[in-house]
Amino acid sequence: MRAGPSQEEIRRQNLGALLRLVHMRGQISRAELTSELGLNRSTIGALTSDLTATGLVSEEAPRETGRAGRPSLVVRASSEQVYVYAANIGVDRITAARVGLGGVILDRRESTRPSGDVVPPLRSFIQSMESKVDTDARCFGAGISVCGLVRREDGMVRLGPHLGWLDQPVGIALQEELPDLLPSVVVGNVADLSALAEHTRGAGVDCSNIIYVYSDVGIGAGIIAGGRRVTGHGGYGGEVGHMVVHPNGRPCGCGSRGCWETEVGEEALLRLSGRTGQSGREAVLAVVDAAVRGDAEAQAAVRHVGDWLGFGVANLVNIFNPELVIFGGTLRDVYLAAAAQVRSRLNHNALAACREHVRLRTPQLGDDAPLLGAAELAFEQLLADPLG
Amino acid sequence: MRAGPSQEEIRRQNLGALLRLVHMRGQISRAELTSELGLNRSTIGALTSDLTATGLVSEEAPRETGRAGRPSLVVRASSEQVYVYAANIGVDRITAARVGLGGVILDRRESTRPSGDVVPPLRSFIQSMESKVDTDARCFGAGISVCGLVRREDGMVRLGPHLGWLDQPVGIALQEELPDLLPSVVVGNVADLSALAEHTRGAGVDCSNIIYVYSDVGIGAGIIAGGRRVTGHGGYGGEVGHMVVHPNGRPCGCGSRGCWETEVGEEALLRLSGRTGQSGREAVLAVVDAAVRGDAEAQAAVRHVGDWLGFGVANLVNIFNPELVIFGGTLRDVYLAAAAQVRSRLNHNALAACREHVRLRTPQLGDDAPLLGAAELAFEQLLADPLG
Repeated sequence: MRAGPSQEEIRRQNLGALLRLVHMRGQISRAELTSELGLNRSTIGALTSDLTATGLVSEEAPRETGRAGRPSLVVRASSEQVYVYAANIGVDRITAARVGLGGVILDRRESTRPSGDVVPPLRSFIQSMESKVDTDARCFGAGISVCGLVRREDGMVRLGPHLGWLDQPVGIALQEELPDLLPSVVVGNVADLSALAEHTRGAGVDCSNIIYVYSDVGIGAGIIAGGRRVTGHGGYGGEVGHMVVHPNGRPCGCGSRGCWETEVGEEALLRLSGRTGQSGREAVLAVVDAAVRGDAEAQAAVRHVGDWLGFGVANLVNIFNPELVIFGGTLRDVYLAAAAQVRSRLNHNALAACREHVRLRTPQLGDDAPLLGAAELAFEQLLADPLG
Repeated sequence: MRAGPSQEEIRRQNLGALLRLVHMRGQISRAELTSELGLNRSTIGALTSDLTATGLVSEEAPRETGRAGRPSLVVRASSEQVYVYAANIGVDRITAARVGLGGVILDRRESTRPSGDVVPPLRSFIQSMESKVDTDARCFGAGISVCGLVRREDGMVRLGPHLGWLDQPVGIALQEELPDLLPSVVVGNVADLSALAEHTRGAGVDCSNIIYVYSDVGIGAGIIAGGRRVTGHGGYGGEVGHMVVHPNGRPCGCGSRGCWETEVGEEALLRLSGRTGQSGREAVLAVVDAAVRGDAEAQAAVRHVGDWLGFGVANLVNIFNPELVIFGGTLRDVYLAAAAQVRSRLNHNALAACREHVRLRTPQLGDDAPLLGAAELAFEQLLADPLG
């Protein structure tokens, strides 16, 4: 049970709410802050001064508005000076970026994923980016996105089937490599973090109930319900790829049979299009391209996968009654090529009330969503207590 | 974005938090309130006085504790004086109860469900109970639990397939019948409300991630994630009965095929046990009884349904990573008779990390859960603003 807060807690809450708004919008006028936060002008002025004094935000006069009256000062996130590092460990590639407050990608590095330990290349990426940073800038930590099951408590990657990972403490390992630079390293699942990013600054900004279905070989979902992330007891929720939709279907790597992933994952599309043995994003996109160009075998494969994609999405729509379903990773292109199948199956299988307001969309942040989501996670502590 | 609250909001928040604790526990000492709410003794004293003055709670010296020192006063919910009405509209039966603050069922009425309008019998039940109430007692409204899809915004029952309902404004209709007694009537789905009740004062008190699977002919789920109800954009979430688990399965009343409900619902169990044409709770329990007594056909039916029950539960465990799954309604007895099948299927189909801490349980509140959940919904406004 939560009692009302103390004066000090209220100040912290207000500072956090103000900084979060600046972070979400990049820049925002004092007048908008006043109206959005429901606080009076003098309180907004005092809070902004506190944040300006610590260098988290800056204030400046807006450009000429052409309107009469004194224009409201614009509060801007100090993106260049206040930043985190973000990384995404995909099946084929690893990416790292420096992300400034306000969600601005300031620098980035990328390479194929090494077969061995990913920590040394991530450390090199970060050191290389850090060498170009102004000395007055401050790093607030790092976030890592992984296609695997991540324990919320400590960021342990319990299982990354398509990475060949079992119990990998990748966050702790990276933090130990760069202890002076990174006060902490947080880790999350790629679909969860992509959903968080799209909800914060992408296609789902105005939606409280979102399912972000993501594929990178396997399938997972990031779920936002009632405006909050649904990650479950240990942090492992969203494993929709292992929802059984076809009990007599093909064996799945998880030990079960007929998981959604076996019908709509990369392997299924490549096999059905006669490309068994191929793998990777480029191969998936080649099938979609071939289908669009009229290749009958590729078209049949895309239709099959689109139909099963619709089956699973209909299940999730019945369970969650979302406003928005976003198709990310390689599912973005599969969805675009099979939108008619997906929509038709959804209309047939989902209850009318559950699907009536749902929109099907591709990501607004594209392939940056995992990085921006990892950065959100890394900024979380600063936003909860800006002067702490 | 939420700014910190004003002084008046803090007081309201504190009063609400205190009253909610008293409501959840029935009675609680001032010392416990102080420690649980993290407020000092004088604040607790002032808040309690405010609530006592309005008759929502009463204070008294505790029974002799045998310990030295002055014992802490006990704050008790005024259950007899502060109450709501709750109703549950099931497929076979309708039930109504007077429920006091603290979740105490003070009186109840029950009958078979009429084939026509349920509002007249509900009105009679309430009038009959109301005639026995002290004149100084106050009714704070009513809550209705329905096995159907309920629009959160206004309580409209959009679809109650097993009730034969389409767009039934049952809450508004009842409120219009008893405008002087009922300031408002709120409506919710039976599985959602049962989950809420078990989370508030039943098997799920200490759990933040719960799935309550409920059957009364059809199948639905109430979902608590991160301590909050997951009801979706319009309020229709939790329709797990229409998750397709068997695409080549039997046609479902929803127009789809192979929905979970077609494999584990009442009709499936009765058909598989050679009782096609029978229906209702008693018939389901008779099959379970026959299976326990060794009837081979009934045993096979229960095993089949148990296996499919496990399939669906495994899907939900992969999606939600809950701590607790509760089997309510007729699924309670089916689960008890087929627990081995359910657990075995869960172990086989759910990822180890997703299922590792999940407990499978029957309801602690039994068949009262829908009534107590409806009462929770009806008390919500009072608890949010006790002096409002």
